[in-house]
Amino acid sequence: MTTLSATLAINIDDIRAAAERLAPVVVRTPMLESPYLNEIAGKRVLIKAEVLQRTGSFKFRGAWSAMSALPDPVRARGVIAYSSGNHAQGIAHAASLYGIPSVVVMPADSPRVKLNNTRALGASVITYDRANGESREAAGEALAKERGLTLIRPYDEPMVMAGQGTCGLEIAEQAAHLGVTQADVLVCCGGGGLSSGVAIALQAEAPGLRVRPVEPVNADDTCRSLLAGKRLSNDAQPDTFCDAIVTPMPGELTFPVLQQLAGPGVCVDDDAVLHAMGLALMRLKLVVEPGGAVALAAALNPSTCQDDAIICIATGGNVDPHWLVAAASGTRG
Amino acid sequence: MTTLSATLAINIDDIRAAAERLAPVVVRTPMLESPYLNEIAGKRVLIKAEVLQRTGSFKFRGAWSAMSALPDPVRARGVIAYSSGNHAQGIAHAASLYGIPSVVVMPADSPRVKLNNTRALGASVITYDRANGESREAAGEALAKERGLTLIRPYDEPMVMAGQGTCGLEIAEQAAHLGVTQADVLVCCGGGGLSSGVAIALQAEAPGLRVRPVEPVNADDTCRSLLAGKRLSNDAQPDTFCDAIVTPMPGELTFPVLQQLAGPGVCVDDDAVLHAMGLALMRLKLVVEPGGAVALAAALNPSTCQDDAIICIATGGNVDPHWLVAAASGTRG
Repeated sequence: MTTLSATLAINIDDIRAAAERLAPVVVRTPMLESPYLNEIAGKRVLIKAEVLQRTGSFKFRGAWSAMSALPDPVRARGVIAYSSGNHAQGIAHAASLYGIPSVVVMPADSPRVKLNNTRALGASVITYDRANGESREAAGEALAKERGLTLIRPYDEPMVMAGQGTCGLEIAEQAAHLGVTQADVLVCCGGGGLSSGVAIALQAEAPGLRVRPVEPVNADDTCRSLLAGKRLSNDAQPDTFCDAIVTPMPGELTFPVLQQLAGPGVCVDDDAVLHAMGLALMRLKLVVEPGGAVALAAALNPSTCQDDAIICIATGGNVDPHWLVAAASGTRG
Repeated sequence: MTTLSATLAINIDDIRAAAERLAPVVVRTPMLESPYLNEIAGKRVLIKAEVLQRTGSFKFRGAWSAMSALPDPVRARGVIAYSSGNHAQGIAHAASLYGIPSVVVMPADSPRVKLNNTRALGASVITYDRANGESREAAGEALAKERGLTLIRPYDEPMVMAGQGTCGLEIAEQAAHLGVTQADVLVCCGGGGLSSGVAIALQAEAPGLRVRPVEPVNADDTCRSLLAGKRLSNDAQPDTFCDAIVTPMPGELTFPVLQQLAGPGVCVDDDAVLHAMGLALMRLKLVVEPGGAVALAAALNPSTCQDDAIICIATGGNVDPHWLVAAASGTRG
């Protein structure tokens, strides 16, 4: 058994405390299984459907965990986040449930649907121009200082990692209920907030379940970093449609957790991801976005592992309709 | 408070017993909510996601309930069903989990995907030719007799009604957890198996929740029958794409339950249904078939009721890809 180093950013008690704070608002997402997908994979495939979480991704867990951990007067002043994606929506919705202001700084060229959703969920959106070299920090910093907003980072933030870890507590219970106690747990991996939180939860609650981060072949920083034993970065503009999980490199706080408790990583190509999205629609009745489907794509590949069962998290479902149409049509374009 | 007549086909104890038999295999489907949909409806909309049930619809509940209630030696000989749709898949999968033979008699011109799915789930499929006036009874009867198969009807079958009622037990618990104790519960209605089972469950467990059956405008037999106080039939070939819930008339066993405990019914047109399917994809991340989306379509119409909250069941998700594409594209063509 691995012994946790005292230097890790969070421990199981942080995750259990986050679960208590989340209990009144979180969706306990189901663990699904389909005989069709089992047949393809040659083993049982259990799918944790985090696309059904509030705001359509697991990110709500971390956002609520971080906000609920703030002292009341600090939280009341509001929060700020830098994000073009699912973290932004999680922050906006959590703040709105708390009735506190939230500011999200987004690139001006973000997909319109993400800008609109973040606003619709209650955040003030501030845009900055990437092309002109404007930095997001410059756009948000003055405002944050002036209003006393608390910055909530998307993954390198202990209370966010603890919130994402609550998904791991549920996986441990649900897998046991379904009779699975020994399996790889494939997790779509960007900065590693979910992978690290789930890894700590499973080590405590279901030590036979082991996290393996999954990435697109062209943004495989975590896979390579785990092999190299140090944090390596991605290309500046990786060629993949899995936008939600493209990050520059593994997190400073998340990577040490993954080194101790997770891996080896798995890579999948975009064609396999689109195919998995189509199967999720037809066989699981779930909309899964590209970055949320890499773990399912890996789970469906019989060569990913030789066990009798495999678990994967479908992490998010905030996808442009044209990719849905492509997935439903069985073609990519 | 309504007093249940002793002549109804099932009571709450039948539903509780079915829930015990279902516990090891059923998916406890989540009750979902989206701020976007609440905004459209002008009230809280809670969606019970039965599309996530095994085989993609609530029908698995009734199939398992009926099969598990059979004496062992009877069940071992196998079961037979007449169905072109979701009941067929529920029967095939339940029989396969039990390791017993199942025969499903389907029209030869059923959609290929339904024929294939029913076979893939483990049933022997026997087709008959509707156009030549062949009857499904003729096709199945000899075989059923010869092999001693037990017929499981899709709705006019007490143990099927009890199985569908287990969905109502979950709704009662989940709505209470979400703080909703007074609301209409909109249920997509074909023969009335689900509507009647849920109505009995709610009367016992959550008397502030009342079932209202929802149907397509062109197949509104239950709505009209409830108004008339007697069972009325539909046109032979109603013009609607909600195929899963087109039945000749309300069931003999189900209708008396609806008369005592449910209504008034609600009708929706196919355009509203397709729009609801698109919103389910984008806002709930769920694939819902036309017949499974009528209740959501009704819930989203602000005029359906004036309460602060409304509940609806998304009953099934077994849809042809071209309707998915149409729903995702926001057009019906």
